[in-house]
Amino acid sequence: MKIVIIGVGLIGGSFAKDVKRLHPEAEIIGVDKSESHLDEALQLRIIDKKGGYTDLQTADMVFVGIPVDVLMAELPKILDASGEETVVMDAGSTKQSICEQVADHPKRRNFMACHPIAGTEFSGPTAAFEGLYTGKTMIICEVEKTAFKLQERALAIFQKIGMRIRYMNPRAHDKHIAYVSHLSHISSFMLGKTVIDKERNERDIFDMAGSGFESTVRLAKSSPDMWTPIFEQNKDNVVETLEEYIQNLITFKQLILDNDFKNVHQEMSNTNKIKQILKGIPLTKK
Amino acid sequence: MKIVIIGVGLIGGSFAKDVKRLHPEAEIIGVDKSESHLDEALQLRIIDKKGGYTDLQTADMVFVGIPVDVLMAELPKILDASGEETVVMDAGSTKQSICEQVADHPKRRNFMACHPIAGTEFSGPTAAFEGLYTGKTMIICEVEKTAFKLQERALAIFQKIGMRIRYMNPRAHDKHIAYVSHLSHISSFMLGKTVIDKERNERDIFDMAGSGFESTVRLAKSSPDMWTPIFEQNKDNVVETLEEYIQNLITFKQLILDNDFKNVHQEMSNTNKIKQILKGIPLTKK
Repeated sequence: MKIVIIGVGLIGGSFAKDVKRLHPEAEIIGVDKSESHLDEALQLRIIDKKGGYTDLQTADMVFVGIPVDVLMAELPKILDASGEETVVMDAGSTKQSICEQVADHPKRRNFMACHPIAGTEFSGPTAAFEGLYTGKTMIICEVEKTAFKLQERALAIFQKIGMRIRYMNPRAHDKHIAYVSHLSHISSFMLGKTVIDKERNERDIFDMAGSGFESTVRLAKSSPDMWTPIFEQNKDNVVETLEEYIQNLITFKQLILDNDFKNVHQEMSNTNKIKQILKGIPLTKK
Repeated sequence: MKIVIIGVGLIGGSFAKDVKRLHPEAEIIGVDKSESHLDEALQLRIIDKKGGYTDLQTADMVFVGIPVDVLMAELPKILDASGEETVVMDAGSTKQSICEQVADHPKRRNFMACHPIAGTEFSGPTAAFEGLYTGKTMIICEVEKTAFKLQERALAIFQKIGMRIRYMNPRAHDKHIAYVSHLSHISSFMLGKTVIDKERNERDIFDMAGSGFESTVRLAKSSPDMWTPIFEQNKDNVVETLEEYIQNLITFKQLILDNDFKNVHQEMSNTNKIKQILKGIPLTKK
């Protein structure tokens, strides 16, 4: 089996590690615009060798883990270069623009639109680790547009890795992911900003910060290169979630200002049901 | 050594466990308005026996871990009942109201105003665990108002547990803790609310939620009984932090609406420096 990983960072690199574990005989070829990332990936044995788009013609499987703006530009070229029997999977956090971008591509049937719900706030080959995907959800969009034989090949790998598969249309994906992922990132970034701005001259104050703060601002460590194009491609949904979030914060603030602590309590009590919801979310162990 | 723990939940119970580890000979007496919590604490060997305020007269040390509204009412009575040689420490997340409440108490010198920066989103005796305080910060306010000998006794315990001590005035404590703790909780609760409201009828959607979402809404599992009085007592500071946070969110949303993704990137990039800040925060391992 010949597998090409385009983008050998956290997402592509971790996928490569899982595939290598399951298929030690597989040849894993890395493609990345960063030569130093490729060197790191080689050194970390994430890939077997460096390659290029010329390797796509004979690849069984191509996994693309690159920022979604680069993906928009590269995916048509990747499909152009792929063989008739190659399955190309992306891992982009937006799906509608991506699916539209290749909707009329002559090799659309070679593409499977994927979004693995997995990741950490770190990036690059050094962030990659075996097991990132185990127990996580793989969302697949427009599965009917992928050739059946190629679907099977991709699904077999995902199932061996231990992922649960969910099928969705790209519009629904982008709408819901704005709530459960994109909004979390913005709330975290702005929380970090608010505190940094305030406490700029009082470094000792961070002695007062506990694990609760750490947890809520963890995502503010995320890569702006990755997240800026996600917010751009999912602009309408992201703005909608932000407006609702801001309105909820304004309402909560007003309850405090009005000394309506009965309803402050009630709001928190209603939201405690998140406990039940979170039970279903597999944690990333690393 | 005779130690009375008032409130045998996560905070008081974990303190009891650390003290017992360091001083196996200590007699640990539990006081709690909940009889079932006392029974649990006995069963979990958090306390050696149940007691009441009559035990305070002969106690060497009293640790009070109860919601701050109850603390306001009980602390004067606790000091009334304490002996001349008893040191009473609280663990309240607000300090100004508490310190004002006992400013003129005849036994003010028996009180040490404390806020350990430690906790989890869970509560009750079953949430208590050994090591919660290890490596964490203990903030002490108005230390000069505590009798020197009693300061020494309290500090000896904190140091043995492995806490780092920081001295602050109550006003500064309440101002800064609003940023690094209270705001995190509200941002998390409102994030949880926004998502629950939206996704009420689409339970499967939470399959799409990953560990990033889990991390940012973790604090929304926290106890409303504990947090409502904190927001009430620290109302002015909490409202100020909320206003700044909301303004930052509005500005970020506007950048997206204006397609100003250069500045969206810049904002996130500036906030990435939170990485350095977070390095100083000890994580709660459990």
